[in-house]
Amino acid sequence: MTSLDLTADVVALTRALVDLPSESGAEGPLADAVESALAALPHLTVERLGHTVVARTEFGRPERVLVAGHLDTVPAAGNLPSRLEQDRVYGLGACDMKGGVAVALRLAAQLTAPARDITYVFYECEEVEGERNGLLRLATHRPALLAADFAILMEPSDAGVEAGCQGVLQADLVVRGTRAHTARAWTGVNAAHRAAAILQRLADHTPERVLIDGLEYREGLSAVAVRAGVAGNVVPDECVITVNARFAPHRSPKEAEDYVRGLFDPASYDDFVVTDAAPGALPGLDRPAVASLISFLGAAPRPKLGWTDVARFTELGVPALNFGPGDPTLAHTAGEFVPVAQLRECERTLGEWLR
Amino acid sequence: MTSLDLTADVVALTRALVDLPSESGAEGPLADAVESALAALPHLTVERLGHTVVARTEFGRPERVLVAGHLDTVPAAGNLPSRLEQDRVYGLGACDMKGGVAVALRLAAQLTAPARDITYVFYECEEVEGERNGLLRLATHRPALLAADFAILMEPSDAGVEAGCQGVLQADLVVRGTRAHTARAWTGVNAAHRAAAILQRLADHTPERVLIDGLEYREGLSAVAVRAGVAGNVVPDECVITVNARFAPHRSPKEAEDYVRGLFDPASYDDFVVTDAAPGALPGLDRPAVASLISFLGAAPRPKLGWTDVARFTELGVPALNFGPGDPTLAHTAGEFVPVAQLRECERTLGEWLR
Repeated sequence: MTSLDLTADVVALTRALVDLPSESGAEGPLADAVESALAALPHLTVERLGHTVVARTEFGRPERVLVAGHLDTVPAAGNLPSRLEQDRVYGLGACDMKGGVAVALRLAAQLTAPARDITYVFYECEEVEGERNGLLRLATHRPALLAADFAILMEPSDAGVEAGCQGVLQADLVVRGTRAHTARAWTGVNAAHRAAAILQRLADHTPERVLIDGLEYREGLSAVAVRAGVAGNVVPDECVITVNARFAPHRSPKEAEDYVRGLFDPASYDDFVVTDAAPGALPGLDRPAVASLISFLGAAPRPKLGWTDVARFTELGVPALNFGPGDPTLAHTAGEFVPVAQLRECERTLGEWLR
Repeated sequence: MTSLDLTADVVALTRALVDLPSESGAEGPLADAVESALAALPHLTVERLGHTVVARTEFGRPERVLVAGHLDTVPAAGNLPSRLEQDRVYGLGACDMKGGVAVALRLAAQLTAPARDITYVFYECEEVEGERNGLLRLATHRPALLAADFAILMEPSDAGVEAGCQGVLQADLVVRGTRAHTARAWTGVNAAHRAAAILQRLADHTPERVLIDGLEYREGLSAVAVRAGVAGNVVPDECVITVNARFAPHRSPKEAEDYVRGLFDPASYDDFVVTDAAPGALPGLDRPAVASLISFLGAAPRPKLGWTDVARFTELGVPALNFGPGDPTLAHTAGEFVPVAQLRECERTLGEWLR
């Protein structure tokens, strides 16, 4: 098993985390390493569920803060192993979000007697369908481990505070046709040809920009998969377009579904199947705990555009925000990186607030 | 091993062949059964290459006729097992082309002393890319087994003669984009959205109808597969549209490629990769052997729209035509069937001409 040195510099630790690949579903070796490193710290109680590791201080403080980060990444895109270049750590997950995980692990090792009790959560399967999410599994099977007065998700937010988050809707648009031999293609109906209208509608759509608490939430609508094909000489009778919608937190998942459905001519598809939906979270800038951290950091909050588990904490009644190193626009890109300066800044400021 | 009774009625034999599934690449059990049944006939010499079975009479006759059919089918579409209904045999491959194979097997068993020597070829992988084709393997490794004065392919042609055949071109149109997280989709370029233009162009295209020797060859252009998708929350950076073109035999494969390329705006795709190409065959109605069978059958020839191995024989210098039971427009459809009357008619007329 790879062992992680939490006393090493945050840059070295980030690189070590990147170099331990952990695509969603394959977080096992990384979770093992994290669990083992944390179990060695006497001020923490460590528990594990699947590939999710929870470490808690138990000093009986009046307040408890939860610091969380997901261990998984999207699939590699020729961006392994890590490399350090121009004061940036490059590599799969460097930005989303092994840099944030490295900061949290460093704090877990350093803060041996914090003013507030702290729960660190390193969890699995954030990058895939919601039902596999490690936080959901905790909320279902071990809800007491998530109890807290305030949660900080270390998702990339350029070392600033990003408040609230957008919701996500995943749906399959199914276009049907009639199978035929391609030598007599005119006797069939080509589902892939019919799908042109759906894809063109997506290409033409201009997503909305929604203002909430002074923050602009910019929506998105993307085909993330297209699948058609029976055999090389068969007119395909089905084409499935998987659509991923990001919606501002003023819409419920049901409202988002109706909105997306309404964009398409009902004659252009045969089925609309929602496969995943997660509500967004309103920014809640008036909550005392949110205001406290924002005021300590002294920076204006920005809207979080990606969906994050802030929404899950909102549903559990725990105020939460995103605060972590890395430019969120680089998440899931082959060239993602995290600036060394932001790693150090997050470690320093969050350490001071938590100390 | 299933054993085939070649003395059984042609309908029972067709159903037995349908009920022995043989999707391309999985023809082994059917080839075993065919080889075993033919090996039991003392007037035939049987050889095998892969899942292709060749059986020959060797009476030293001045002329040799080759009768061929492929053993493979496209994938099942809920159309197994076979059933007999309203004097039709339904089921996967009933039309394309286990009905024709049944007729050929019956003739192989019955014609113990034909006027011409006969070579029966039952071959693999006709429904997939050309390089796996069993006839090509024979032409490459055992060309002497294909020597003949005339070839009859028992592809479905409604128990009439279909002359020549169209060519086939298979190509991948690759559309590229820039990967991005869907929460900030506007920072990427969605390759699936870009693909709308290609699919719409295919939907809008009206294929040509070409007259040769008085026969109309109707061309076709179909997307047979569309593939895009990295992960559920990633803007895909590539979409591949596989296009299948059927072109009249006056075009060479290169001319067909130029024609298809010319249909698309060069800005609408990034790569055009030809993955398979096979020339068509001109009808050649003036060849004596072709004229002889057509005159014996007393029916006007029709153009063959599907590609068949007639083109391969044309390249080998062996005159060839399609003559077999089943409506070719039903090939590769879930509801394909072969009429009992056509099975019997083909067995009778071809038997008389070959006797």
